[in-house]
Amino acid sequence: MKPSENLGERKIIEIIQSRLEVLPKMPVPFGDDVSAYDIGNNNLVVLKTDMLVDKTDAPPSMNLWQAARKTVIMNVSDFAAKGVKPLTMLVSLGLPREITRKGVEEIGAGLNAGAREYDAYIIGGDTNEASDLVISLSLFGMAKKDEVMLRSGAKPGDLVAVTGSFGKTTAGLKILLEGLEAPAKIRRVLVDSVLMPHARLKEGLSLSQTRAVTASIDSSDGLAWSLHEISRASNVGFLLNRLPVAEEANEFAEINRLDMLELTLYGGEEYELVLTIKPKLWRKAEKAVEKVGGMLLPIGNVTAERKIFLEIDGRRRVIEPKGWEHFKSVRV
Amino acid sequence: MKPSENLGERKIIEIIQSRLEVLPKMPVPFGDDVSAYDIGNNNLVVLKTDMLVDKTDAPPSMNLWQAARKTVIMNVSDFAAKGVKPLTMLVSLGLPREITRKGVEEIGAGLNAGAREYDAYIIGGDTNEASDLVISLSLFGMAKKDEVMLRSGAKPGDLVAVTGSFGKTTAGLKILLEGLEAPAKIRRVLVDSVLMPHARLKEGLSLSQTRAVTASIDSSDGLAWSLHEISRASNVGFLLNRLPVAEEANEFAEINRLDMLELTLYGGEEYELVLTIKPKLWRKAEKAVEKVGGMLLPIGNVTAERKIFLEIDGRRRVIEPKGWEHFKSVRV
Repeated sequence: MKPSENLGERKIIEIIQSRLEVLPKMPVPFGDDVSAYDIGNNNLVVLKTDMLVDKTDAPPSMNLWQAARKTVIMNVSDFAAKGVKPLTMLVSLGLPREITRKGVEEIGAGLNAGAREYDAYIIGGDTNEASDLVISLSLFGMAKKDEVMLRSGAKPGDLVAVTGSFGKTTAGLKILLEGLEAPAKIRRVLVDSVLMPHARLKEGLSLSQTRAVTASIDSSDGLAWSLHEISRASNVGFLLNRLPVAEEANEFAEINRLDMLELTLYGGEEYELVLTIKPKLWRKAEKAVEKVGGMLLPIGNVTAERKIFLEIDGRRRVIEPKGWEHFKSVRV
Repeated sequence: MKPSENLGERKIIEIIQSRLEVLPKMPVPFGDDVSAYDIGNNNLVVLKTDMLVDKTDAPPSMNLWQAARKTVIMNVSDFAAKGVKPLTMLVSLGLPREITRKGVEEIGAGLNAGAREYDAYIIGGDTNEASDLVISLSLFGMAKKDEVMLRSGAKPGDLVAVTGSFGKTTAGLKILLEGLEAPAKIRRVLVDSVLMPHARLKEGLSLSQTRAVTASIDSSDGLAWSLHEISRASNVGFLLNRLPVAEEANEFAEINRLDMLELTLYGGEEYELVLTIKPKLWRKAEKAVEKVGGMLLPIGNVTAERKIFLEIDGRRRVIEPKGWEHFKSVRV
């Protein structure tokens, strides 16, 4: 092979796609969070695969049970963003030769714990030898075609909302990877946000019933990146008037003199939903999410011009298309 | 981690399964070639995932296009054995950092070529950085519940059949990996059987329509291993009266003084179907396969005692549960 051209993840996906013949009448376009197949009568089979590679996706302090469970969360989060309930999962494992019986048990138990948290089951799989620990999951679910929340429907005037606050995982990663300090009471929250993430499935499922959502994505590549993805898919822009800062992340930023803007916008591995919502149905959406114990935080508006700004106290900043990307990491 | 306990692939799968809660009324049991979910009215969603790791599954002379295509064949072959048509596939890639643009193009084109050979489409996926090249595919298809050919229905008195002859891939691997010699005219056939395998999808689909098949599996882990798998799942034995030897493999064995029995029984990466068939419907099954351009080769009978023998010219030999297995390879 020739020396690395340092292709980014997005570029690699573009190249692969350019070589693929396209399924006629594909109900969910390439590049959205899930894939789907139309089985008629407004019914879709919804499918998703995503892989955890320990050396890039799991911090050293994450144990195998947590890594396996996290793989489930990563995948369920994409189903959540589309408003689809996962029913079953298959697992394809690449295991290093030195894996122990206890290690395999932890992986099995972590996969099961993750699946059962969301009322799904692991129904099959396969194992192989590999240099890294690789956990590849594939999810299946069913959905009504007109209830799936794509990335592409945002319209100028829609409200922008998130299902929670941001910054905790980036702070947690700085504690785990760079040894930054935090008082015990917030340390646990920040570290847990990395080791024990949760997917917003209840929120996504209840929102898909309201028909209030015009576009949706999860924030696994960071809030800024997610906004840029909706921007691209819907051909719109955003004017944010609020930064959804997590309290614990804010405290951590102050202690360690970090830029809270960076922590909130350009993190990743955070599994909130980023949504655009019809203004007239805002109250309905908010009530639906509250009914399942969640919250919907308005952070701004959809605009016609394809640019993304944050304006607070009269100061306008550009939100850049930065975030976590494998290979070419531009992560903070 | 503790030093390796050298777990085998089967043991690893057992450990994982022991940690999983089981989907109620699972229509296809753990351990069969595919998994399934019952969506009612005799309809199953059929799912399968399998991973190619270049360092263990692709000989060095296999190019990336061929490796990607082979990943499709591996997966389609399992659908073929169950008599289910794959409709769509998702791909999850682990790519080494040094992968080139050309390499990625070859992978995309190989995946597409494989999928389109069987009239299926790649509809989505994901890419990650990994040390090895890892290609994990997940297939989806639909089937009538009562048409899926499981491993578990073989009955004493049934006929045993295969869809082709054996030994070519093991011979081909000996040429590619050990540098053994073969005359040009058979060398190409043997090497191609490794680099350009085919799945017996037409055969599997036509057989599932006949209702003649009582058990079915593909031979990707070798003929002997496949027979032992049906034996375990159906609680039966086999008495084979014929060794389905490929002509080219036979010639290769003579030239290189290899044991043809070993080559035929204990190989792997060979994608024939191994089937048990109701004697009364034999002719129907044979005609169905011939109609799609294939062949059905009878090789023996199902017996009540859970042992597997080959008896030729009055000499009876035990067929051992040997074959290709990752981690603990007992392959010839």
